[in-house]
Amino acid sequence: MKIAIAGAGAMGSRFGVKLQNAGNEVTLIDNWADHVQAIQQNGLTITQNGHDTVVPMTAAAPQDVTTHFDLIILFTKAMQMDQMLQDLSAQLRQHPMILVLANGIGNVETIERYVPQENIVAGTTVWSSSLTGPGHITITGTGSIALQAMVPDQFPDFKRLLTTLNDAGLHASPADDVLAAIWKKAGLNSVLNTYCTLFDCNIAQFGALPNWRALTAAVLNEFQAVASAANVHFDAQADTELIAAQFAPDVNGDHYPSMHQDMAHRRPTEIDFLNGYVARLGQALHVPAPTNALLTQLIHSQEALRGIPTA
Amino acid sequence: MKIAIAGAGAMGSRFGVKLQNAGNEVTLIDNWADHVQAIQQNGLTITQNGHDTVVPMTAAAPQDVTTHFDLIILFTKAMQMDQMLQDLSAQLRQHPMILVLANGIGNVETIERYVPQENIVAGTTVWSSSLTGPGHITITGTGSIALQAMVPDQFPDFKRLLTTLNDAGLHASPADDVLAAIWKKAGLNSVLNTYCTLFDCNIAQFGALPNWRALTAAVLNEFQAVASAANVHFDAQADTELIAAQFAPDVNGDHYPSMHQDMAHRRPTEIDFLNGYVARLGQALHVPAPTNALLTQLIHSQEALRGIPTA
Repeated sequence: MKIAIAGAGAMGSRFGVKLQNAGNEVTLIDNWADHVQAIQQNGLTITQNGHDTVVPMTAAAPQDVTTHFDLIILFTKAMQMDQMLQDLSAQLRQHPMILVLANGIGNVETIERYVPQENIVAGTTVWSSSLTGPGHITITGTGSIALQAMVPDQFPDFKRLLTTLNDAGLHASPADDVLAAIWKKAGLNSVLNTYCTLFDCNIAQFGALPNWRALTAAVLNEFQAVASAANVHFDAQADTELIAAQFAPDVNGDHYPSMHQDMAHRRPTEIDFLNGYVARLGQALHVPAPTNALLTQLIHSQEALRGIPTA
Repeated sequence: MKIAIAGAGAMGSRFGVKLQNAGNEVTLIDNWADHVQAIQQNGLTITQNGHDTVVPMTAAAPQDVTTHFDLIILFTKAMQMDQMLQDLSAQLRQHPMILVLANGIGNVETIERYVPQENIVAGTTVWSSSLTGPGHITITGTGSIALQAMVPDQFPDFKRLLTTLNDAGLHASPADDVLAAIWKKAGLNSVLNTYCTLFDCNIAQFGALPNWRALTAAVLNEFQAVASAANVHFDAQADTELIAAQFAPDVNGDHYPSMHQDMAHRRPTEIDFLNGYVARLGQALHVPAPTNALLTQLIHSQEALRGIPTA
């Protein structure tokens, strides 16, 4: 299959290598010029268990892509999604399958402005990866993907897509309610990413706070109220348990969430597609979400104090 | 007049010196043993414009005070107010005048549990001072006091109190609505103290945030709703203008508010008597104050992360 990874950062690069190793023709598409150039000149370097592997791969900036694809996997950050889709408009006119696995709520709505709904598959993944430098990722452990076509009975290629992903060892399985899965992951991220960034702490330190349950409930109770008004299934209690399960150091306790890494490296955060999305949707649906609105403002304040341009 | 300063930190010490210089018999009462001992042994050192003055003064821990007083000025921090009043129960039985100028809302309610309402005068002051070390304060500028008896027609000594304060150069004048003045100052502090502590920034940096007005409105609109339900005058717009007037470096821009100093020195903050008071009162009066409730939790989280014991 001809596959584009649009947004070939840590996760996209890891997926790209696995899909290429399984015999697909893969192009990594990214806007970070140093990263693209490093891959073009030296290949992608993958560090695992202290051991480096170098894999030659095709990489390009969005505007330099001329190939057409059977499948475009979108790992673009939520706030860059719109621009990436505009840059790939020539490719989108060929009606490729679109698989979106990027974090945050609202990606599908952005994509639907450019792609017919029946071509879109959405999913969540628990694979992980770190971008260590231009052309260099560091990976640990394994993961899985849960995915669902937005219009299941109009997506005949779903089995072929699953087979392609599973032949690459990506452990893909069908999801019954992918929107619920996206909200569940966004709920977790809207607690752990946001508070760990605000407090400059890791996940274990957040879990050790005497008031972590109050902080968590303030966010997730609003998620549940807004989800309910939007006819999305969301269970604040189940999400709280999922969060609590991350605190152990041998799970994710030692981890600083991706938003913390973004802030530390002076990159815009995804806050507008986590707490900020729920605040906006709550406003549109007349369901107050003041906690998520304030947390969104607080993270934007921290971005401003660090001189980070607004996303 | 025999005057006790209960809570003889930065502000209390400055007031004590001025009142003693005017001929009153002043005792500084404080729970910080090193501070009391330093004053007992070496007097109080006052640095002004780089010049040191040493003033011999009487200082004691609350439990060691045997004198009775005509006037007790309470500068105790809000969360230590209750304990201070218990420690001074022998003095309170002599029915001294009580003047409370400490920051935070709710102090009068605490005092009324120990002192008849008709003996209490409440006020606000814009004098400032820093506690530079045990027995050592640093002062700049001048200030004023606005004060009002809680039961004006049952407080015949009000003019005498004003005269005592003004003879000491403290620029005291009667307030028409001291509760409104306390809320006005608490509103300012619940914005500047809280956000500057949360963001680890000074007042000018807060004022330079693109979203400072949104952050301010989130706090003060709830202040106004809760104040209205509690029949206290509060004007969010006027408080916002007062806050904006602090941003210039030659006003208060370079200043790190007292809560920021408390956090930096690992002391419990006064958050429960600023945003936290409004959150609790809002709950009691069925007026939602989720922003102030969340900010209270966030500051308590920061205290916990710094190993500061709960107040």
